[in-house]
Amino acid sequence: MKDKTFLMIPGPTPVPERVLLETAKHPMGHRSSEFSKILEAVYQDLKYVFQTKNDVIVYTASGTGAMDAALSNLINEGDKVLSLVIGNFGSRWAKIAAALGADVDKIEVEAGQAINPEDLRAKLNQDNEKKIKIVTLTQNETSTGVTNDVKTLVKIIREHGALSVVDGVTSLGAMECKPDEWGIDVLISGSQKGFMIPPGLSFLVANERAWEVHKQCKRPDFYFNWTTNRKSVLENSTAFTPNVSLICGLKVALEMMKEEGLENIIKRHTKIAKALRSAIRAIGLKLFVEDDSIASTSITAILPPDGISVPEIRKVLKNDYDIVVANGQNALKDKIFRMGTLGFVSERDAITAIGSLEATMHKLGHKFELGAGVAALIKELNRG
Amino acid sequence: MKDKTFLMIPGPTPVPERVLLETAKHPMGHRSSEFSKILEAVYQDLKYVFQTKNDVIVYTASGTGAMDAALSNLINEGDKVLSLVIGNFGSRWAKIAAALGADVDKIEVEAGQAINPEDLRAKLNQDNEKKIKIVTLTQNETSTGVTNDVKTLVKIIREHGALSVVDGVTSLGAMECKPDEWGIDVLISGSQKGFMIPPGLSFLVANERAWEVHKQCKRPDFYFNWTTNRKSVLENSTAFTPNVSLICGLKVALEMMKEEGLENIIKRHTKIAKALRSAIRAIGLKLFVEDDSIASTSITAILPPDGISVPEIRKVLKNDYDIVVANGQNALKDKIFRMGTLGFVSERDAITAIGSLEATMHKLGHKFELGAGVAALIKELNRG
Repeated sequence: MKDKTFLMIPGPTPVPERVLLETAKHPMGHRSSEFSKILEAVYQDLKYVFQTKNDVIVYTASGTGAMDAALSNLINEGDKVLSLVIGNFGSRWAKIAAALGADVDKIEVEAGQAINPEDLRAKLNQDNEKKIKIVTLTQNETSTGVTNDVKTLVKIIREHGALSVVDGVTSLGAMECKPDEWGIDVLISGSQKGFMIPPGLSFLVANERAWEVHKQCKRPDFYFNWTTNRKSVLENSTAFTPNVSLICGLKVALEMMKEEGLENIIKRHTKIAKALRSAIRAIGLKLFVEDDSIASTSITAILPPDGISVPEIRKVLKNDYDIVVANGQNALKDKIFRMGTLGFVSERDAITAIGSLEATMHKLGHKFELGAGVAALIKELNRG
Repeated sequence: MKDKTFLMIPGPTPVPERVLLETAKHPMGHRSSEFSKILEAVYQDLKYVFQTKNDVIVYTASGTGAMDAALSNLINEGDKVLSLVIGNFGSRWAKIAAALGADVDKIEVEAGQAINPEDLRAKLNQDNEKKIKIVTLTQNETSTGVTNDVKTLVKIIREHGALSVVDGVTSLGAMECKPDEWGIDVLISGSQKGFMIPPGLSFLVANERAWEVHKQCKRPDFYFNWTTNRKSVLENSTAFTPNVSLICGLKVALEMMKEEGLENIIKRHTKIAKALRSAIRAIGLKLFVEDDSIASTSITAILPPDGISVPEIRKVLKNDYDIVVANGQNALKDKIFRMGTLGFVSERDAITAIGSLEATMHKLGHKFELGAGVAALIKELNRG
């Protein structure tokens, strides 16, 4: 049906009506005192969601812009960077570092796996001369639905002495992430994810260690420059004309997040993703990430059964039930489909998704006990 | 009054209701076929507004992002860049070039003046060894309301052989700009200006000469990389998650621009700005740019009369008439105020603005014949 589309992709994620209406207002002047007050509230509330006392820079750019902003403010030509790659977005860190002239080494694992902390420890132990300056990693790999144990990995990186630069694009607001407590040096995220607003903004927070390294950066990018951008944050302003509409929407979304409470938000994501996994298994489908301990709370990747293709499943889900799920990326295209449960997603949405997936698989001739998915979902959602 | 604000700043500019409503829709998936069709139309229509046969890249970033994108895809460390500076935005080009390690020289004129083509010719004639690789310039200087004769300047640059890189942020859709015909090598613009949508997108078009230079660029920025971004344009896609909402709004805005016709849009801007200048003089106020031949058709800078301050004028205009005009920037702060007539601005808006300015100046005790401004405006608007 027209106008019935329900996005269950890893982003853009669903946007609450009150946020959409806020973004539809006529943009105000970005140098006005009214807008400055909005920025003040946004900068304050971002610290809450980022669980940090440090300033959070807001870029008018997508998540990749913030990734670029992270590395282009730290790297000088020839610097040694170690990238922990568990999928496309981990790989993107390595590409950005290489584009900046870094000497990039990688620990790369098969798609669907997480980084083994002992592999990282071994790798860093080999670096006797402490040449590795930065280690990049991904908290939640959007392309596979795998979550790295960032807390442990960052601890190991800190012991070595390198800076940790973490992609929190699809993890912030969906799983625990405590940069100050864990010692993450740079953390970035994007708007169209756990923040429940459309794409177009991204965020970056750096701690004092990272700022010290930034001071030695010879050619920080102009648009993404940390120093000029943070100066504006401290003045409740922005360095350049920001996306005024999205920032007004973000203010409302952050108020909703504060009202629900970060802990409750993370519990909701965890519960829904766990129940979804249980339901997928009950339908007789295989999870791409079988190990529950590394499974994402925001993205679930699913394998199609023999004889039924990913495009068929996506097509029926979309045409008959107006649900959009994502295909796999690159080598995983048509091998998996991915269901996002990130941001403004409720238990009802999970019921809708699993019910519709049952209907879809039934239509496509997959053999399973009809209703088993919804039953498993409800049971898991109501477990104590 | 609440919700009555009328922006007459150089940007964000007024946004048509149908565009705002379009941006308020739930964002669609950026990898969907529906969105690809929207991008196809947008890329096509941008060529019309840019008057070019070359591909126009759309960045999710503000105008400064596109400026960064222009130079960071061309400059190698040590390259010679000549920046033509007639105000803050001309100066920004020089800063970006310097941040990229270029050896930057400038031709700088007093605020309120344009570049004299003969000064440029003389400067370039001195460069016997053709060391200057890039000349940056601004078509319309937002900080002063001065328009450079880009057609003539670019011709001189082409004779020398350097690349011309032009800021069209507040000129596109307000005054003639023909990159292909005039030989502009790189041209950028921003969304919240003549394009009648909120801030958050910017645009870049480069010709074959510029692409050849780009190929020699050792470290193009990753997010702004021309090659990866254009590849996506050719596939009716984007390299990274774009601001889906703004692109949907842009599609509608571009349809409105096509319907009115670029020539008519430029005539409208020219007529309104000319009439506004006539009205300002009739009120007994001085124009910051007295020379009509270099006066902007999108931004008009006005001097306050003796004994009345810029903050007073801005305050009454805002509090009593809900009209926001811009202050001067940097050294011009409180010396001038700037009225934008860019984008979705009609004759009625000019009447509103001048009528309200009369009321404001009357309240503040400025002596002039009440009604003279509106009379001059109407006469000029109706001149054959």
